[in-house]
Amino acid sequence: MTGSPLTGSLVIVGTGPGKADLMTPATRDAIAEATDLVGYGPYLDRVPMAPGQYRHASDNRVELDRARHALSLAASGRRVAVVSGGDPGVFAMAAAVFEAVESGDPSWRSLDIRVEPGVTAMLAAAAEVGAPLGGDFCAISLSDNLKSWSTIERRLRAAAEADFVIALYNPASKARPHQLDKAFELLGNLKAGQIPVLFVRAAGTSEARVVATTLARADAAGADMRTMVIVGASTTRQVGRWIYTPRGARP
Amino acid sequence: MTGSPLTGSLVIVGTGPGKADLMTPATRDAIAEATDLVGYGPYLDRVPMAPGQYRHASDNRVELDRARHALSLAASGRRVAVVSGGDPGVFAMAAAVFEAVESGDPSWRSLDIRVEPGVTAMLAAAAEVGAPLGGDFCAISLSDNLKSWSTIERRLRAAAEADFVIALYNPASKARPHQLDKAFELLGNLKAGQIPVLFVRAAGTSEARVVATTLARADAAGADMRTMVIVGASTTRQVGRWIYTPRGARP
Repeated sequence: MTGSPLTGSLVIVGTGPGKADLMTPATRDAIAEATDLVGYGPYLDRVPMAPGQYRHASDNRVELDRARHALSLAASGRRVAVVSGGDPGVFAMAAAVFEAVESGDPSWRSLDIRVEPGVTAMLAAAAEVGAPLGGDFCAISLSDNLKSWSTIERRLRAAAEADFVIALYNPASKARPHQLDKAFELLGNLKAGQIPVLFVRAAGTSEARVVATTLARADAAGADMRTMVIVGASTTRQVGRWIYTPRGARP
Repeated sequence: MTGSPLTGSLVIVGTGPGKADLMTPATRDAIAEATDLVGYGPYLDRVPMAPGQYRHASDNRVELDRARHALSLAASGRRVAVVSGGDPGVFAMAAAVFEAVESGDPSWRSLDIRVEPGVTAMLAAAAEVGAPLGGDFCAISLSDNLKSWSTIERRLRAAAEADFVIALYNPASKARPHQLDKAFELLGNLKAGQIPVLFVRAAGTSEARVVATTLARADAAGADMRTMVIVGASTTRQVGRWIYTPRGARP
């Protein structure tokens, strides 16, 4: 660091669920104006190339390193866009960037940083099937890379007690095949077996695929890294070919 | 109803939080292709006029009537767009439409109905302040028009037990000035007083205004119908001028 004022900037954006027409114009413009894009390769592949723009693609499991790299570039005067999928503030890069600011060079706290909202995966998944998030709901990441499984269990229990609709992000990966099984087992002991459970794969892309089942029949093998799992509330129901949760609740 | 096949269609869209560049292109296109727009007047005012397009503006408190009207138009062969703010599936019109399908003319179940996702208010509010939704979170509407206050209290208690970040939709209105006070009191007995509380008014518009305080100091008078209130988790914190929730959790 020199003593000179910081003239770079950093914007954290989300490309939405996948289809180009689900990315907001504000995000498209922020990406186009950046000198440097930093992100997981497949997300960078979704955005058009701009002349002279640098692309710093990385693996998906090094969020903090990627955030520090982006902050260093901004501190050196570059206009940086950190590119997530979905909404950058929901289980994506924005929190990682602020973690890196907190633990990093004190000058980073005076950088020009902003966040552009986007369409997060659970909204795209819900739209594919109707309106399952029509009542009160919660969003839980099943990844225990950064929190303990006991914390996740406590949250699932509380979500059942609240009768929230439950959106499960990161339900399964090759490294974690058994957690969704455990989550279904836990919820199955607390909620009625006929409650709708939705597996929505690749929501908001041209390959979207929906499997609607019940909690009693839900099989964790139906989920992978690209799947959003939504577990209904007691009121969630089917009408025609749609699944929705009414706005009201049981008393 | 005649015995003829239904040729109309109904798409339920959300304009996002307010700024034109936070509406997705898919939503803009769906609105442009409709013959009839149905929605609350201020949301319809956000979308450009198309030649020959009919606009059916209504009051904000007659969602089911508006949904039935939209379904009738679609059943008569019109291409209808139901226009919400934010995302149509989150405390907006999509659930009301499916409620109307369930209780309405059986032929409505075979209508061509789809939902386009959008940027819901809590994502825009979070982006204004940093990344407060960076961990597991829940969304609760404080309106007791359609559910009992005891249900809302049960959900707030469970959310505190889960240590979720809590996004409060519809925190206050002229008809309901005291519920946010009661919510803060309840949460204040269950969570630490220094937990960040954010009042974000008109998020995602050019008039956005943020007040950051703590649970112990939070004053419900700071919220109105255009305010999103976000109550942090135990880990939610300030860094520089931003508020964020780290991706991990306390064990």
